[in-house]
Amino acid sequence: MLIVMKSMATQDQIDVVISQIEQNGFTAHVSKGDIHTVIGAVGGKTIDAREIELLDGVEKIVKITSSYKLASRTFHPENTVIKLKNCEIGGKEISMIAGPCSIESEEQMDATAAALAQYGIKILRGGAFKPRTSPYSFQGLGEEGLKIARRVADKYNMCLTSEVMEISQIPLMLDYVDIMQVGARNMQNFNLLRELGHINKPILLKRGLCSTIEEWLMSAEYIMSGGNMDVILCERGIRTFETATRNTLDISAIPVIKKLSHLPIIADPSHASGLRDKVAPLSRACIAAGADGLIIEVHNNPEKALCDGAQSLFPNQYGELSAQLKTIATAVGRIF
Amino acid sequence: MLIVMKSMATQDQIDVVISQIEQNGFTAHVSKGDIHTVIGAVGGKTIDAREIELLDGVEKIVKITSSYKLASRTFHPENTVIKLKNCEIGGKEISMIAGPCSIESEEQMDATAAALAQYGIKILRGGAFKPRTSPYSFQGLGEEGLKIARRVADKYNMCLTSEVMEISQIPLMLDYVDIMQVGARNMQNFNLLRELGHINKPILLKRGLCSTIEEWLMSAEYIMSGGNMDVILCERGIRTFETATRNTLDISAIPVIKKLSHLPIIADPSHASGLRDKVAPLSRACIAAGADGLIIEVHNNPEKALCDGAQSLFPNQYGELSAQLKTIATAVGRIF
Amino acid sequence: MLIVMKSMATQDQIDVVISQIEQNGFTAHVSKGDIHTVIGAVGGKTIDAREIELLDGVEKIVKITSSYKLASRTFHPENTVIKLKNCEIGGKEISMIAGPCSIESEEQMDATAAALAQYGIKILRGGAFKPRTSPYSFQGLGEEGLKIARRVADKYNMCLTSEVMEISQIPLMLDYVDIMQVGARNMQNFNLLRELGHINKPILLKRGLCSTIEEWLMSAEYIMSGGNMDVILCERGIRTFETATRNTLDISAIPVIKKLSHLPIIADPSHASGLRDKVAPLSRACIAAGADGLIIEVHNNPEKALCDGAQSLFPNQYGELSAQLKTIATAVGRIF
Amino acid sequence: MLIVMKSMATQDQIDVVISQIEQNGFTAHVSKGDIHTVIGAVGGKTIDAREIELLDGVEKIVKITSSYKLASRTFHPENTVIKLKNCEIGGKEISMIAGPCSIESEEQMDATAAALAQYGIKILRGGAFKPRTSPYSFQGLGEEGLKIARRVADKYNMCLTSEVMEISQIPLMLDYVDIMQVGARNMQNFNLLRELGHINKPILLKRGLCSTIEEWLMSAEYIMSGGNMDVILCERGIRTFETATRNTLDISAIPVIKKLSHLPIIADPSHASGLRDKVAPLSRACIAAGADGLIIEVHNNPEKALCDGAQSLFPNQYGELSAQLKTIATAVGRIF
Repeated sequence: MLIVMKSMATQDQIDVVISQIEQNGFTAHVSKGDIHTVIGAVGGKTIDAREIELLDGVEKIVKITSSYKLASRTFHPENTVIKLKNCEIGGKEISMIAGPCSIESEEQMDATAAALAQYGIKILRGGAFKPRTSPYSFQGLGEEGLKIARRVADKYNMCLTSEVMEISQIPLMLDYVDIMQVGARNMQNFNLLRELGHINKPILLKRGLCSTIEEWLMSAEYIMSGGNMDVILCERGIRTFETATRNTLDISAIPVIKKLSHLPIIADPSHASGLRDKVAPLSRACIAAGADGLIIEVHNNPEKALCDGAQSLFPNQYGELSAQLKTIATAVGRIF
Repeated sequence: MLIVMKSMATQDQIDVVISQIEQNGFTAHVSKGDIHTVIGAVGGKTIDAREIELLDGVEKIVKITSSYKLASRTFHPENTVIKLKNCEIGGKEISMIAGPCSIESEEQMDATAAALAQYGIKILRGGAFKPRTSPYSFQGLGEEGLKIARRVADKYNMCLTSEVMEISQIPLMLDYVDIMQVGARNMQNFNLLRELGHINKPILLKRGLCSTIEEWLMSAEYIMSGGNMDVILCERGIRTFETATRNTLDISAIPVIKKLSHLPIIADPSHASGLRDKVAPLSRACIAAGADGLIIEVHNNPEKALCDGAQSLFPNQYGELSAQLKTIATAVGRIF
Repeated sequence: MLIVMKSMATQDQIDVVISQIEQNGFTAHVSKGDIHTVIGAVGGKTIDAREIELLDGVEKIVKITSSYKLASRTFHPENTVIKLKNCEIGGKEISMIAGPCSIESEEQMDATAAALAQYGIKILRGGAFKPRTSPYSFQGLGEEGLKIARRVADKYNMCLTSEVMEISQIPLMLDYVDIMQVGARNMQNFNLLRELGHINKPILLKRGLCSTIEEWLMSAEYIMSGGNMDVILCERGIRTFETATRNTLDISAIPVIKKLSHLPIIADPSHASGLRDKVAPLSRACIAAGADGLIIEVHNNPEKALCDGAQSLFPNQYGELSAQLKTIATAVGRIF
Repeated sequence: MLIVMKSMATQDQIDVVISQIEQNGFTAHVSKGDIHTVIGAVGGKTIDAREIELLDGVEKIVKITSSYKLASRTFHPENTVIKLKNCEIGGKEISMIAGPCSIESEEQMDATAAALAQYGIKILRGGAFKPRTSPYSFQGLGEEGLKIARRVADKYNMCLTSEVMEISQIPLMLDYVDIMQVGARNMQNFNLLRELGHINKPILLKRGLCSTIEEWLMSAEYIMSGGNMDVILCERGIRTFETATRNTLDISAIPVIKKLSHLPIIADPSHASGLRDKVAPLSRACIAAGADGLIIEVHNNPEKALCDGAQSLFPNQYGELSAQLKTIATAVGRIF
């Protein structure tokens, strides 16, 4: 932490700051510039920087160290590659996750997975518990849905991912899924994150709608600090003033994360845009920008979907997109 | 729902739209303008409007009815006034809630409450479970903290409010608090909201950091649809591009809510600004804008606080603010 | 400027940074912490910090000095008080500016000003050149409008303010107005700002819709660096994700500016909210938060206004608001 | 325009609304739903919708027609292709514009253009007048710079684009450039746009930092309404809460614009990200998303650039990127 004093700060004010940081176990390094005195605080315990910021004569406080360590590339320079039974995430091969928003029935899941299998999909998605903004909307099939999805995933030799919404669902989910999904609204549900740090399955952590990249990595840190190092980050759009799209997919976050962290990063163009005809262009853009994979909604019959049909691709649309992505992957040195 | 067709939409396209909405149980009212045909869809069941939006020839969809009913002033024109044992919220009198961020010890709570009692505070605040962004920060005293806070509140004849972070904490919290607080990060934790709809204590519902006013009212609806009508809305700042303050307190939300809903609305200037010296100006502004009350962090010794001391007022600062608010209350026809 | 090196930065990388900043005329002060080496760069000429940020081994760059000097309270601790012929802005008395959005006719201006004179208004507003988003909307009366407004202002012994939209209008405007207004869209029209730095009338500088407080002060600096120190800042709402109001009035900016700068700050609740019924609550909030004044749209017949009638108060509504503000002013130690 | 009445609106209130819209020349079409009466207003002149919104009993107003016509794909279904002397923009071939931020000298321009010519660049960029946030930064070479850039462009058989900052510069610019650039800060400088509508050279219109897509198209409409139909839209990043990148490049805007408008759209990844190492991933993403081209900063010696060197590519970096884009172009059916 660096404390920048005001240009007119008195020696007394400087001394108070030094004394305060020393009381918190820091060593103070003072350097006097032309205009400002800067005090470096080294080696102490955690302190609320704002407490120093409020002292007389202080201009501002500068944090030096990032709050996350385990998620940082600084301390782990090589990419994390997460191994599943039939594929890897974060390696050279692009990882495609596809399936419907909600698990609705055996027929729906089977028809969708059969179509996806043709296009080489190795990870199936489908929600069993749905966080709906209206209390009157379809809330998901629960365990019954998980059973269906598991049977279908096994039939087509796919892994399965589904969203966990609260701590009490974890034991149940563990019986069925290969990857636990944490939704955008739960990105800072710290109690849930802490529990997920103690399981031994990968966590797909979506970015919160108004979360900064630093907060997102901090949430990954919560999980990792419990011992579970297999975190997959998923960009799914942030909220901005623009209303022409549901959210603004922050594609810049992909190269930023690649620089800051060793964790794999994928993107969810379906939820970001909310409309089927935007999914293909955004999918292509994410792979071109360096994403390790995508999670896309595909439904065997989107017009009859109980949830988010409007943003689900038809299977043949996925097929066309898949061919485009194959070409783009070669441009960025990846395998599709 | 109104469906606006493109200026060049064909009769066939119009017919497909009509057929689709009729299949969903709606009656179609078609009116042809100079440029656009508009189709009104009346009386059907819930439908994902985007499904219609994707049909050929459709320009856009317009939702007519708001998604919330119980929270809406349309169906409940008079203000909701929530009765507590020693005061009311939403009536003519301004409701002030004060106390430390976290419950730290009996001494701290007692000293703070003693000071606040002098200024007429009737509702004490204090966190027992703390949602901290870092896994290494102080996480709260838990039930021990609730016991302390309850004893102190009783001693000074105050009501008590504290934050509930997950469903499993509800039974415990019910034994100690008079008002359950839902934090900004849980505003869309729908499972939690649903459970809170079944208890018989008021809920203080903070606005999410990037939630629209409509979503906020929809979250109130979640609680109310379970039968609990005593919801207090709390504006606590939204996230914007401005970095000079921690969040941007959306004071305009106060008159907007007053128009749309009958629920009481208070504000939290401490969390919004994050710095003590901004709390007084923002508190005055909220009361001047018509808020029903404030929730403010006050600590007997902010510089030693384990959490958010930098945004906590000293008791005497609260006293000065209190005197200013008394004057402002008269300007807006309220009692302080 | 401080350069924070990565934890794993090599001595070679540190040396390259030192060499680079010394080539730009800075002196380097190196201090080694537990994890990071920090290099202070003192006394050099302007440099694009990103150039250093891109060097190998650099974690981040921290700017120490703010980019504005003349606008900063650091170098000018006392409030700036701007003297007009009949009043002051930034002193103990609250400054109220009122009038219609556009100057439409002598009758309209006279009727409006006559009503405002009763409530003690000393500064009249009215636009002669209107920046309209549609090329087909009313574009203002131009010089004819300025003549009308000047005659009316003189009749009621008021000062006049009106918006200047481009450099070529400056000489004309100088003949008629007492305060030049710079609109939100021109806040970073640097050519215009530079010219306004050479005139000897006060400038009312509105904040851009997506401008940070620092950029706003930097724009004030542009004007002041030309010699014109009489800048009045005007908060008028920023753009956020919230759509229930036209813009989000950033009332927190008022105490923030009061801390950072010595310049007077007023607010424009009419443009921020865009709706008449939000103007009074927001006006009260701004004065309660410490604003030095307000600029409010009032029209003798808002329903017939050619521009922004929906956000204009009726004269008697202004009268009621005025009485409330008088009370609030006393709460914050101001004269109304 | 549709007027949705409140569920409890009285017949009297409905009558007042009808009367008001008829006074403005509209015909009223009334349709009564289960809950709401909806009044369609057809065929009248321009009216400020808020004036109706403020009438008693009105729930909300819905605009039916978009404010832009000439820029809309509704009235011009085929893509606009802009013809320059040596290439087209908006056709099947991707258009690449490259060059330094500022024109600094003949040597710099020549060395940069020579390198770019090898990679097939047909349009050179370079600023002669620079809008700098600090009054002390390099402000550009002015006409001298334009002369240099023109000579160099001619030598390498390239077109030239440069930014026009105000009306008074138009005649001068016309002598030198092939495409006039309007910067983000001038996107709503309506006086400037109006003048540019009368010239016969294409306009490259950058999106404002906080402008919606609708406002952007409205600004294009301003130019087109004067007769100049050759507008090239340029996405360059919007301002959000994220601070890890300078701006958030809104790549979703590319498919959105392609649906709403027939105008060509390109992107500027250099200004959006502000850092060289983000330019390649974002460039690839934009082409993958369907952009018609890119404008990229390339400098023969970025480390010595007088302006924005940190975001400028080295010529060989441009070459590598170029090869990647060639592959991606094939994936989206374009020629590179």
